[in-house]
Amino acid sequence: MLETIKVETGETPYPILIGEGILLKHMLPEMQEMVMRRRWLLITDEKVAALYPNLLNVFPGEMISQVVLPSGENTKSMEQATAVLENMAEAGITRLDGVLAVGGGVVGDLAGFCASIYMRGVPWLQIPTTLLSQVDSSVGGKTGVNLKKGKNMAGSFYQPQAVWIDPLFLKTLPEEDFWGGCSEVVKYGIIEGAYMRQWLTDHWSEITSRDPALMAGLIKRCLECKAAVVAADEREAGLRKILNFGHTAGHAIEKMLEYKITHGEALRQGMLLELELACRLHWVSRDHCDQLKAFVKKIPVTTAIRNLNRSELAAAMAADKKNRDQRISFLLPREPGGIEEILLSPDEVIRLLAHSENLSD
Amino acid sequence: MLETIKVETGETPYPILIGEGILLKHMLPEMQEMVMRRRWLLITDEKVAALYPNLLNVFPGEMISQVVLPSGENTKSMEQATAVLENMAEAGITRLDGVLAVGGGVVGDLAGFCASIYMRGVPWLQIPTTLLSQVDSSVGGKTGVNLKKGKNMAGSFYQPQAVWIDPLFLKTLPEEDFWGGCSEVVKYGIIEGAYMRQWLTDHWSEITSRDPALMAGLIKRCLECKAAVVAADEREAGLRKILNFGHTAGHAIEKMLEYKITHGEALRQGMLLELELACRLHWVSRDHCDQLKAFVKKIPVTTAIRNLNRSELAAAMAADKKNRDQRISFLLPREPGGIEEILLSPDEVIRLLAHSENLSD
Repeated sequence: MLETIKVETGETPYPILIGEGILLKHMLPEMQEMVMRRRWLLITDEKVAALYPNLLNVFPGEMISQVVLPSGENTKSMEQATAVLENMAEAGITRLDGVLAVGGGVVGDLAGFCASIYMRGVPWLQIPTTLLSQVDSSVGGKTGVNLKKGKNMAGSFYQPQAVWIDPLFLKTLPEEDFWGGCSEVVKYGIIEGAYMRQWLTDHWSEITSRDPALMAGLIKRCLECKAAVVAADEREAGLRKILNFGHTAGHAIEKMLEYKITHGEALRQGMLLELELACRLHWVSRDHCDQLKAFVKKIPVTTAIRNLNRSELAAAMAADKKNRDQRISFLLPREPGGIEEILLSPDEVIRLLAHSENLSD
Repeated sequence: MLETIKVETGETPYPILIGEGILLKHMLPEMQEMVMRRRWLLITDEKVAALYPNLLNVFPGEMISQVVLPSGENTKSMEQATAVLENMAEAGITRLDGVLAVGGGVVGDLAGFCASIYMRGVPWLQIPTTLLSQVDSSVGGKTGVNLKKGKNMAGSFYQPQAVWIDPLFLKTLPEEDFWGGCSEVVKYGIIEGAYMRQWLTDHWSEITSRDPALMAGLIKRCLECKAAVVAADEREAGLRKILNFGHTAGHAIEKMLEYKITHGEALRQGMLLELELACRLHWVSRDHCDQLKAFVKKIPVTTAIRNLNRSELAAAMAADKKNRDQRISFLLPREPGGIEEILLSPDEVIRLLAHSENLSD
């Protein structure tokens, strides 16, 4: 069954198609037609290229060239973006051609960024292959690379022409990447509310067995939540911020651990810390906090994160893009419902998080 | 006297203020107010910093830091952009701060590009100090850097909050840069038509003496022409292309000469070649072509460009962003009036330009 979502953004609404086998088994006619319209540069990474060596052959259009990036977060750098741009110029890409990004969040963020600045913008198609990128990073038009001082500190808002999601890709996803994606799913459970949390709890065993039909429905659900928020606020002036629940702490943890853990693992720990923060600010009761934490802990720990130094954590948070007036921005659940922003000084954060699980002084 | 233009673009209209001394003598209250609103990172180059060492002091707002770029076209690189972005992150710039770009086209293009991608966009103010940047590159929201394969091959469309132009800066402009800017003025004369060419001819001696009041009026006139075109076509889908008259050949010449001549010198030669092309295509009569060439030749030659190889020139043109279907895009005058696009294969260009001034086989 094919699921479709139309993402309404300012200038350029675009479709998301989600369906079992739409890329790996039988490409839909409307997709073939879109691919036939131009010549493409395929950008992917080593892992995807090794798992799907015949990927290029499934596309009916003319392929100009192929860029295979090293796998991993370190690929999201200005240096790598520069190499890809030089490669695009070398291959003779013009504004009539396009970029086909096939891979996880790293590939999507980097390829989208390059597409947005090459000749001041060429079209691109996004084909996310990991759970994390399927439920999250492929919607919203955020592209980017990391700077030394922090994640995603350079980038653009640039919408793809379409996003195509095949849950069959998930079958080959390594365990830790699958659970990493589940962190983002759980985040939507906390943002969306009790009904979605119940649904996730009820279907947890089908989720963990990566049942393609169920995953298609789940992906659609997460993306609808994100698409609705993004459509209302493309440039992150207000509402869109709620999607950052768990991410202020999560990004800081990733940075402290030098991106050696997955984004999902950092997010899992980030959500637990931010839930504790919400509780200590009396935004949620201890009971509700514990319930939400138990929900987050459905995701097994793949790499243990222990003894993070509180002051170092606060210092790492202090570089967050959302910060204002030297204060750290958090998006936290607040009873009776919803997510709200609070700005806290690094000292307040250190004080509030005293004696927290997995933190040290 | 203060001249003002409002540039109407899709999302964000912005004002251009043009006036003798508005930066170097007495900053206007509305400008002071705008500067006071945020903290700024000043980006400039070695030449401007040496000529105007007290520049920072004239700004009433809080300055966070200062980046002084090497002067010259080689600064427009991804590597330099990366260094500036790391610098911005190091200085702790957030989305509430802004970038103040003070300099010629190179500074504006690089600083605007960095402002557009740092944290996916921070505000910027553009203060062009050369004639070329005052009459041209400060309007239209094009930012960018060069790749190995060609000029401005990476960049963005990103409008500044305001453009402030003080013709007093022109007093310190080296001779070749002044004439380089005049090439762009002459280009507007050819795009705009006979009336503007007559006005320029009548006022040529005041122009060459860089009279500030007259220059303010002249700059306004050129910018109004450009602003009208840009407002109608921000993303260069159609009309905006007419501004590229002389530039297909001009950019190719710059590239062949490895950016060792000024953009204006390359444009002067590019216009002469493209006028010849228009004549040989029978778009303009030989008489009209000679008149327009004589008008272009009012600009003295500062660096002689001789014996450019025709085939190499055509090959250099083949990398132009405007090209389609392996054919080179030219924007040429066509009688009775106006500028039109034509697509020519490299072979046709080589054939049409046989036995042209300054070209070799």
